[in-house]
Amino acid sequence: MTNSIFALLGDIIHTPKAGEVEIHYGSYLVCRAGRVAGIYPRLPEWFENEEVIDCTGKLIIPGMVDMHLHAAQYGARGFGMDLEQNEWLHNFAYPEEYCFEFPEYAEKMYTSFADELLHSTTTRACIYGSVHTDATVTLMKKLEQRGLRAYVGKVNMDRNAPEYYSETLDGSVEETLRWLELSNEFKKVKPILTPKCIFNVSDALMEQLGKIRDSHYLPVQSCLSETKGELEQRGELCPDCNTGAEAYSRFGMLGGAGGCVMAHCVHSDENELEALSRAGAYIAHCPASNLNLSAGIAPAARCLRDNMHIGLGTDLAAGESLNLCTAITAAVKVSKMHALTVDTETKPLSLVEALYMATKGGGEFFGQVGSFEPGYDFDALVIDDSPIAGNGRCTLLQRLERFIYLSDGKVEAKFIKGDKVL
Amino acid sequence: MTNSIFALLGDIIHTPKAGEVEIHYGSYLVCRAGRVAGIYPRLPEWFENEEVIDCTGKLIIPGMVDMHLHAAQYGARGFGMDLEQNEWLHNFAYPEEYCFEFPEYAEKMYTSFADELLHSTTTRACIYGSVHTDATVTLMKKLEQRGLRAYVGKVNMDRNAPEYYSETLDGSVEETLRWLELSNEFKKVKPILTPKCIFNVSDALMEQLGKIRDSHYLPVQSCLSETKGELEQRGELCPDCNTGAEAYSRFGMLGGAGGCVMAHCVHSDENELEALSRAGAYIAHCPASNLNLSAGIAPAARCLRDNMHIGLGTDLAAGESLNLCTAITAAVKVSKMHALTVDTETKPLSLVEALYMATKGGGEFFGQVGSFEPGYDFDALVIDDSPIAGNGRCTLLQRLERFIYLSDGKVEAKFIKGDKVL
Repeated sequence: MTNSIFALLGDIIHTPKAGEVEIHYGSYLVCRAGRVAGIYPRLPEWFENEEVIDCTGKLIIPGMVDMHLHAAQYGARGFGMDLEQNEWLHNFAYPEEYCFEFPEYAEKMYTSFADELLHSTTTRACIYGSVHTDATVTLMKKLEQRGLRAYVGKVNMDRNAPEYYSETLDGSVEETLRWLELSNEFKKVKPILTPKCIFNVSDALMEQLGKIRDSHYLPVQSCLSETKGELEQRGELCPDCNTGAEAYSRFGMLGGAGGCVMAHCVHSDENELEALSRAGAYIAHCPASNLNLSAGIAPAARCLRDNMHIGLGTDLAAGESLNLCTAITAAVKVSKMHALTVDTETKPLSLVEALYMATKGGGEFFGQVGSFEPGYDFDALVIDDSPIAGNGRCTLLQRLERFIYLSDGKVEAKFIKGDKVL
Repeated sequence: MTNSIFALLGDIIHTPKAGEVEIHYGSYLVCRAGRVAGIYPRLPEWFENEEVIDCTGKLIIPGMVDMHLHAAQYGARGFGMDLEQNEWLHNFAYPEEYCFEFPEYAEKMYTSFADELLHSTTTRACIYGSVHTDATVTLMKKLEQRGLRAYVGKVNMDRNAPEYYSETLDGSVEETLRWLELSNEFKKVKPILTPKCIFNVSDALMEQLGKIRDSHYLPVQSCLSETKGELEQRGELCPDCNTGAEAYSRFGMLGGAGGCVMAHCVHSDENELEALSRAGAYIAHCPASNLNLSAGIAPAARCLRDNMHIGLGTDLAAGESLNLCTAITAAVKVSKMHALTVDTETKPLSLVEALYMATKGGGEFFGQVGSFEPGYDFDALVIDDSPIAGNGRCTLLQRLERFIYLSDGKVEAKFIKGDKVL
């Protein structure tokens, strides 16, 4: 974190509240010691002779937060999208992740992944690696080198996985401890406990992970109620639990001080949503992957309006892209379908609501992140949308809408906690 | 059309039948007099010393066909996507189209539009202009200059439109005749009769257009059964008709020798689908816009498998983009939702089926177009997908799938009827 003071001058948009947008034409977004000092039409007196970065005509918006993506599936993105979840995992995801056993492969793919992430709209992310300790450390290093802030997890998985890509109970625990030890070297990238999902983690391993979580004060990420098939198998795998959330809860893996992100929650019933809400867990809504894998549509609009913690995930690579703009538009689109076919009582998500989810909604998992309110981390994107023809007659919000829908235009500069990383 | 013989050497993929893909590694796609002569692993003897364009390592696929888009809405793309159809038309589409009354505006916007279309995967298209004759001629000229082949329509609309953007019955007929006269100058771009939709065209105007159609042997394009609201209004506007298709049919506007494209068909019932099928009409399936405007999901997979004529439309600008790759993936995605929520009996569209729709499915409206079978028009794209990291381990079909899903990579060269246009 830098101690310096500086300002960006440009057209500023953010969503401090879900569904509400704040627009400041030609204003100064001032950074002090890595945090937002405020948005000013004119520079405040105390600013004095500090640097002003002139971004006149550019859009300035908060950095986006990807609450769920699989870095180790980067090489499988856009493949096998005709398949449903289980087939896709066994044909594309697992064979790809397996390759991260080889250091050269991890080095190559994670370099490409981190470079693409750096140039995207994403500033923070909750990321799955693979089961491999060393590759996961490589991933953390690549992100740290680029100044990105992220929670990264070595995946734990000791059941229902192909033999070539599974762990033993003891091996998983041992490697998790070794990984946590190695993770100490990083400042901006932090470890997050990552039991793949209840079907891939035995109760015995879950119990051990719960203990590790306690002793290390770790956050946790996992997947929950993604497919109907998952619900059907739960009775067999977790016979004592009424909901998937309960299967995490009994091992101290839901909510808690370290924080908890559950991806998907497509088929969560009232009890499960209630449990998530009570635990203060974050939902990572992944509309693109839910569509691609025919999982279904999560009730995201309702969760957001019920004041649950909910952010957006690209779920690369079941989501084809790590571009969060695509996740925003996908969230709007699937919620329209949801309103037409499943829940006609709930109005679809607006673009501004989906933008909130992609910024402050997920950002709060990282602290005061995802908004330009004073005191929030200075995570900002400068967007050059001039490549999009015909912008002359647009309002600022329309320019942003077009940038998000067309995923056109360029992230010209990116700041994270006040550091210029791009 | 050129009379020359030449060949492209590269990795060739096309879908001569719906759901079937043909793959030719490192082969020659030979063009003779604007048509496909064949695909050869080695050059045929008669080829002799003709030119071979070496595209080794590149993908060669048929040019794509956009069966429905509004060029005069290019300036409104990506705007107002939170609105439903009627609101969107009145707040975004009509105000934008109105501007094409001004020649400088038409010149500027249609230049940008045609340039973007040229660099896209689209080779042929059925395009709506605005109600303005001169602007529509400008559009035709811009397309012709770039070597694109298209049917372009001056829009007819004499009811239920805002006063500032409506025609009178007589004015519409007169301008249509003037436009047809002016259209004679074009070789590659042809006029298509374009009654906006039954709600915007009075019976009296429809009758006149039917006569013009007959005397000029024109194809026709319109919109059909797009929204539920449309179905509700039909009783009032076309009291004698049981289906929207009937409202066209009675004026000789459905099917016929000139050909007919009906966009959307989201809410077409069995009778209407039957009528479309009998008339040999083409359906332009527009999944992106149907999602954006909350119109619903058309039963595209069923229509395709029932051997109806069905192609894909981007429906720019209710579809946010003129990129047909986006329409392909949107078609696959919405058909998954359709299979989950509406019609659980019908399997979702596969990528290959959607690719067929985007090539030969719509292409046949233009003749022998959209496939590399011998005798088909030589409409080909050379795609450089090297910007997409990690392509080394992919099959050819996976490379194509990734190109389509990520809309990444570049159209390096484009041929239409044997002419190199890019």
